[in-house]
Amino acid sequence: MSIFVAFEILGTIAFAISGAVVAISKKMDIFGVAILGMTTAVGGGILRDLILGITPPAAFQSPGYALTAIAVSLLVFLPPVRRLLHWKEKLYETALLLFDAIGLGIFTVIGVQTAYIARGELNAFLAIFVGVVTGCGGGVLRDMFAGTPPYIFVKHFYATASILGAVACILLWNIGQMPAMLLGAAVTLALRLLAAYYRWSLPKAK
Amino acid sequence: MSIFVAFEILGTIAFAISGAVVAISKKMDIFGVAILGMTTAVGGGILRDLILGITPPAAFQSPGYALTAIAVSLLVFLPPVRRLLHWKEKLYETALLLFDAIGLGIFTVIGVQTAYIARGELNAFLAIFVGVVTGCGGGVLRDMFAGTPPYIFVKHFYATASILGAVACILLWNIGQMPAMLLGAAVTLALRLLAAYYRWSLPKAK
Amino acid sequence: MSIFVAFEILGTIAFAISGAVVAISKKMDIFGVAILGMTTAVGGGILRDLILGITPPAAFQSPGYALTAIAVSLLVFLPPVRRLLHWKEKLYETALLLFDAIGLGIFTVIGVQTAYIARGELNAFLAIFVGVVTGCGGGVLRDMFAGTPPYIFVKHFYATASILGAVACILLWNIGQMPAMLLGAAVTLALRLLAAYYRWSLPKAK
Repeated sequence: MSIFVAFEILGTIAFAISGAVVAISKKMDIFGVAILGMTTAVGGGILRDLILGITPPAAFQSPGYALTAIAVSLLVFLPPVRRLLHWKEKLYETALLLFDAIGLGIFTVIGVQTAYIARGELNAFLAIFVGVVTGCGGGVLRDMFAGTPPYIFVKHFYATASILGAVACILLWNIGQMPAMLLGAAVTLALRLLAAYYRWSLPKAK
Repeated sequence: MSIFVAFEILGTIAFAISGAVVAISKKMDIFGVAILGMTTAVGGGILRDLILGITPPAAFQSPGYALTAIAVSLLVFLPPVRRLLHWKEKLYETALLLFDAIGLGIFTVIGVQTAYIARGELNAFLAIFVGVVTGCGGGVLRDMFAGTPPYIFVKHFYATASILGAVACILLWNIGQMPAMLLGAAVTLALRLLAAYYRWSLPKAK
Repeated sequence: MSIFVAFEILGTIAFAISGAVVAISKKMDIFGVAILGMTTAVGGGILRDLILGITPPAAFQSPGYALTAIAVSLLVFLPPVRRLLHWKEKLYETALLLFDAIGLGIFTVIGVQTAYIARGELNAFLAIFVGVVTGCGGGVLRDMFAGTPPYIFVKHFYATASILGAVACILLWNIGQMPAMLLGAAVTLALRLLAAYYRWSLPKAK
C-alpha cells in the first residue's frame, strides 16, 4: 500500500468519524449514522471527480473507501464510544472539530494532487479551487443533510484554512509531491485548530 | 413502447406524486408544486447520469419525463385530489410512503441497469452504488428543497431497502434482465413498506 | 472584451451581490459572505457545465469570475454599504429581489447559448432546461446554504420567468444571437419584477 493510499484512508476515517458524530448528535438511527458517515467521507471526492470529468468517480469504483467509512461509522455508534462522547459535553464538539480538520487538510491536498494529475500541468487556480471543493465538499454535504448551517459559512477560517493549505502545497510542489502534500495538509489543520482554539475573531455584520 | 420505458414512466409518476404531496404539505403554490414534483422525478436519474458520465443526462434530452412529472404534479394539485389527501390526516402520510417506495424500487433497479449498460460489464459495487443513488437521489433533493430532514437519514430501512433490492437484481441478472429488475424493485418496495408497517425498530443513539 | 463577456460579468456581479446580501442578513462573517457571494455567482454555471459535460467547468479554469464575485461580496460587506442596506427595512429585500432577478435573466440566456454551442444545434427542450438550471442554480445553492427555503419554490413566477425568458431567447435566435439574448434576459427580468411588484397571486394549497 502506497503512502498516498494510506493518507487517503486516514482522511476517509477522519471524515467518517465527523459524519457519524454529527449523525449521533442528531439522534439518527444506526443506518442514518452509517450513511451520513459514508457521505461525508466520499462526498468531497465525488464532487472533485465530477468537476474533473473523472466518471464514474473513484469512490464508485473502489469499494474500499465507502466500506471503510461505513465500518468506522458503525464503530463510532457502539455504545461505549457514544457514552465516551457524551461523557463530557465538550468532548463531542472537540471530536467533531478535530476529525473534521484532519479530513479538511488531507482532502484539500488530495484535491490539488488529483487536479494536477488529471490535467497534466499545474494550473494553480484550478488546483486550489478543486482542492477547496474536495476538502470542504464532504463537510458541506454532511451539514446540509443533517440540517445544520454548513461549517464553511459559519466557522472562522474554515475555507481560508483550506485555501492556504492548497496554496502551500502548490508552492512546495517542487520539493517533492509527498512533502508538499504533508506540509499543505499540516498548514490547513494547524490554521483550523488555531482559529478554533484562539477564537480568531473576524468582522461580522451587525 | 418497450416495457422498460413503461417501467421508467411508472417510477417517474410515482416520484412526481411524492414530490407534489410534499410540496402541497409545505403550502407551496402551483409552480412550486410542479417544480418539486419534477425535481423529485428526474433528480435521481440526473445524478445517475452525471456519475456515469452520460452528458447531457437523459432527462435533458427527452422532454417526456419532465413533462409527465409536471402534468402529474398539476393533477395532484387539483382541489378534489388535495381535498382527498386532507380528508384523513393519515392519507397524506400513506400516499407519500407508498409512492415514494414505488419510485425508490423502480429507480434503484433502473440505476443498476444503466450502470451495467454504460460500463458493458457488471461491476457489482458500482451497480449497487449507482442504483442506490438513482433510487434515493430524487427523494433526497425533494426533502432538502422542502426543508425537511431527508427520508434516507431518518426512515428505517430506506437506504437498506434500496441496497437489498439492488443486490437482488444483480443476483438474479442471469435469469433475465426484466424479471431481475421486477423482482429487485419488488424486494425494495416490500421491505420499505414492511419496515414502515411493522415499525421495524433499529438501535438509535440516546 | 466582447459584449458576451461583459454580459456574463454583469450577471456574476448581480448574483454575487444577492449572495452577499443574504449572507449578511444571516449574520455570517466576512469569509462566509465572500464564499456565499462566490457560490451564488458561479454555482449556476458550474451545474450547467457539469450537465453539458464541459469539465472542468469554466469557473474552475478562468479565475476572473470567482475573483470578481469575491471582490464584489467584500464591497457589499463594507460598513457604509451594510448601513445603507439596513437604513430602511425594505431596502434589503429590494436589493435582493433586483440583483437576483438580473442574475436570473442573464444566466438563463447564457445557459441557452452554452447549450446551443456545446451541442452544435438548437435542441429547444435541452436549451430551455439548461437555461433554467443555469439561471436558477446559483440562487438555489445560495438559499440552501443559507438555510432558507429556495426562492424557486416559494416565489411567484420565479422558474416561470426563467422558462419564458429562455423560450423568448430561442424564438428570437434567428434575428441574431445578441439581441435574442438581451431580449430573453429582459423578458425574465421584467416578468420577475412585475410579479413581485403586483404580487401576482397564484393558486396555493390551503
